Amino acid sequence: MTEVLDLAKRLIAAESVTPATGSVFDELQAMLEPLGFEVTRFTRGDGEEGSPEAPVENLFAIRRGPEESKHFSFAGHLDVVPPGGGWASGAFEPEVRGELLYGRGAVDMKGAIACMVEAVKDVPAEAGTISFIITGDEEGPALHGTRALIDFMRAEGHQPDLCLVGEPTSVNRLGDMMKIGRRGSVNIWLEVEGTQGHVAYPHLAENPIPKLVAMLAELDALVLDEGTDWFQPSNLEITDLEVGNMAHNVIPAKAEARISIRFNDLHSGASLSEKVGAIAEKHGGIAKPIISGEPFLTPPGEFSDIIARAVKDATGVDPEPSTTGGTSDARFLRSVCPVIEFGLVNATMHKRDEAVAIEDLSTLSRIYTAIAKDALA
Amino acid sequence: MTEVLDLAKRLIAAESVTPATGSVFDELQAMLEPLGFEVTRFTRGDGEEGSPEAPVENLFAIRRGPEESKHFSFAGHLDVVPPGGGWASGAFEPEVRGELLYGRGAVDMKGAIACMVEAVKDVPAEAGTISFIITGDEEGPALHGTRALIDFMRAEGHQPDLCLVGEPTSVNRLGDMMKIGRRGSVNIWLEVEGTQGHVAYPHLAENPIPKLVAMLAELDALVLDEGTDWFQPSNLEITDLEVGNMAHNVIPAKAEARISIRFNDLHSGASLSEKVGAIAEKHGGIAKPIISGEPFLTPPGEFSDIIARAVKDATGVDPEPSTTGGTSDARFLRSVCPVIEFGLVNATMHKRDEAVAIEDLSTLSRIYTAIAKDALA
Repeated sequence: MTEVLDLAKRLIAAESVTPATGSVFDELQAMLEPLGFEVTRFTRGDGEEGSPEAPVENLFAIRRGPEESKHFSFAGHLDVVPPGGGWASGAFEPEVRGELLYGRGAVDMKGAIACMVEAVKDVPAEAGTISFIITGDEEGPALHGTRALIDFMRAEGHQPDLCLVGEPTSVNRLGDMMKIGRRGSVNIWLEVEGTQGHVAYPHLAENPIPKLVAMLAELDALVLDEGTDWFQPSNLEITDLEVGNMAHNVIPAKAEARISIRFNDLHSGASLSEKVGAIAEKHGGIAKPIISGEPFLTPPGEFSDIIARAVKDATGVDPEPSTTGGTSDARFLRSVCPVIEFGLVNATMHKRDEAVAIEDLSTLSRIYTAIAKDALA
Repeated sequence: MTEVLDLAKRLIAAESVTPATGSVFDELQAMLEPLGFEVTRFTRGDGEEGSPEAPVENLFAIRRGPEESKHFSFAGHLDVVPPGGGWASGAFEPEVRGELLYGRGAVDMKGAIACMVEAVKDVPAEAGTISFIITGDEEGPALHGTRALIDFMRAEGHQPDLCLVGEPTSVNRLGDMMKIGRRGSVNIWLEVEGTQGHVAYPHLAENPIPKLVAMLAELDALVLDEGTDWFQPSNLEITDLEVGNMAHNVIPAKAEARISIRFNDLHSGASLSEKVGAIAEKHGGIAKPIISGEPFLTPPGEFSDIIARAVKDATGVDPEPSTTGGTSDARFLRSVCPVIEFGLVNATMHKRDEAVAIEDLSTLSRIYTAIAKDALA
C-alpha cells in the first residue's frame, strides 16, 4: 500500500495545471522505465501560454508481450484543473490526514495513474502487451492531447484490443459505476437579423425577435429520440438569449440565442447541426455549431464483464454500466478499440480539498491488475 | 409678419431645456398681459435637478369674453429637447438665414406659441373667452406639467369647450395633417425564474427560457384588434430579450424580455396590462407594466371641420385627420374637452438646426385666428 501512495504523492507534487508539460511526465517516465516500458514523449502546439494552441505534452509507453499476444491499454491524463483557493493544505503538497490523501489530482486522475503503474508490477511481461496512453490536456481544449496520441499510435502500428480510461467514475463508493459510453455535446449559436426602427412605426422596421421566438419554440418542441437501451433520450436546452436593447421604443436589429444539445449514439454532431440549421433557416436565421464531442458506446459484453468481475472480487460491488455525465477522452479512443472508463470516487473532483481514500488506491491497483490479466488472457 | 417673427425669436432666446422654469415664462407673460390676459404661474416638483421630480413651471392665462360666451383654449409647451452639438448657429441664438428662422423650439413648439399670441390679437375680446394652457414639461416625464394645469383649471372652474394643441403635426407642408387622436403606449417587462443547473443534468435544473419562449410566442400571436375607423390596429412588439449566460454548459436561473404595445381606443393601459399579465402567469412568469400614455380620440366632426376650413382657406390644403405617431399632452387634455393637434411642419423637430419657414409663422397665425373665431362663434 505504501508504494502506490508514494507514486500518487510524487505525481501530485509535480504541479501540472492544464496544459501540462515537463516534470510530471519526468516522474511517470521514471516510474515506467524500470518496469520494462519503452517511453515516447512529444509536445504539440506552438501557441502562447493561455491560448488553445499552448504546448501540450503527451506520453506513450509500451511493454511488448510475446508475438501474437493481446494488447491492453491504460489511458488517462496528468493535467489537472486549477486548484482555486481555500485548501487546508497545499494543493500541490500531497498530505495524508487520517485515511485520506489530499491534493489536486488525487482522484482526477493522478491517483488512478499511480494505481495503473502499481497494477502492472503484478502483470507478468509474458501475459501480453501493455501500453499507457497519457496526455497533458484532457481538462483543456484537448486539441493536441489524446487525438495526437492516437495519430502517433496509428503511425507506429500500435493497435490495442481493449482500453481502460481511469476517469473517476465511482459515485458513492469505489466500484459502484463504470462508464460504457458518453453522450455527445454540441453548442449552437442562433442569430436572426432584422431592420431597426421605432415601435410607433413597425411597418418601417423588421423585428427579428418574433422569428427567433418561433425558431426556439420549434426547437424546444423537438423530440430527438426516446432514448436507447444504454442512453437516456437526447436533450436540447436553450441556454442563452441576447438582444441588449436598452431603448424602450426601438425595434432592435438583431436577436441571438444559444442552445446546448447532449445527444446519444442515434445522432452525430453533424446530423444535429444540420437539423437545427434547417429550422433556423426556415425562420430566417442562421445557426453556428461548435461540436465539443461525439457520443461513444462500448455495449455491455466481454469487456464490461471483465471489469465487473474484477470489481466484484475486490469490493463485493456490482458496478452499474452508465452513459451519464459529461464528455471525456474516451470519445476519441473509441475509434481505436472498445473503451470503458473506470476509476476512483468522484465526489471531490475539481473541488477544494480534493482527496482519495488511501485504501481505495490499494484496492484500485488490485482491480486494475485483475482487469489487465483477464483482458490479455 | 415681423411681429410674429420677433415673438418667436424672444421665446427661442430664453433657453428652456426640459423641465423649463423662469425666463421663458416671463417672456410669454409679458406678451399676453398687454393683450388683456390674466396670467397665473405656478411651479411644481421639489426634486433635485435631473430627477423626475425636478421643479416644472406652468402658466395659465385667460381673457374672459362676455358672460355665457364660449371658451376656446390654446395648449402647448415652452420646454424644448436638448440641442445636441453641431449647429450652424447657436441653438438658443435665433437666427434668420434665407427664408428660415433657426433655433431649438422653432417648430416644437415655441414657433407655434408665438403664432397663438399673434393670432389672438385679431380675435376681438367680445368674441368669447380665450385661454392659454402652457407647461414647461412636455418633453420630460410630464408628471407635474399639463396634469397639474388641468387640476388647477378644475379647481378654478375654467372649462374650455374646445382645445387646440400646437404640436408640429404638418409633415411635408404646412396644413397637410392634423392629429385627431393618438395611440396609447405601454411597456411591459416580463420575467421567468427557474433553477440553475448543468446542461448534462437537466432533471436537476428548471430552465426558464422555454417558458419565456412559449409566453412570447403566445403574445406575438395575439391579434389585439383589427383597427377602428380612425386608428390603425393596436400593435405589440417584443423589444428585448435578456439572459446574459456566458457559460455554455449551464442552464440559467432567470430569463427576461420586454414588450411595447401601441394601442387604440379599444383598449386601456390597464386592460392590456391585465391581459399580458394573465398570459405571463399562465407560463410561470410575471409582468411589470409601465403605462406611458392612454389613447385619445376626438372623432371627426365640428371641431375638425373648423380646423380644416381655416387651413384650406389659408393654404389651399385639405388636412388629413390622423392618429399616427407617438404620444403628446393631448392625451391629458382630452379629459377636459374635445382636443385636436395642429401646428408647424415637423421635419426638423428634435434635430440639429431645427428651423421654421418665416412664411409659415405668418400663415399659421392667420389659421389660428380663424380657428379661434370660428370655435367661439
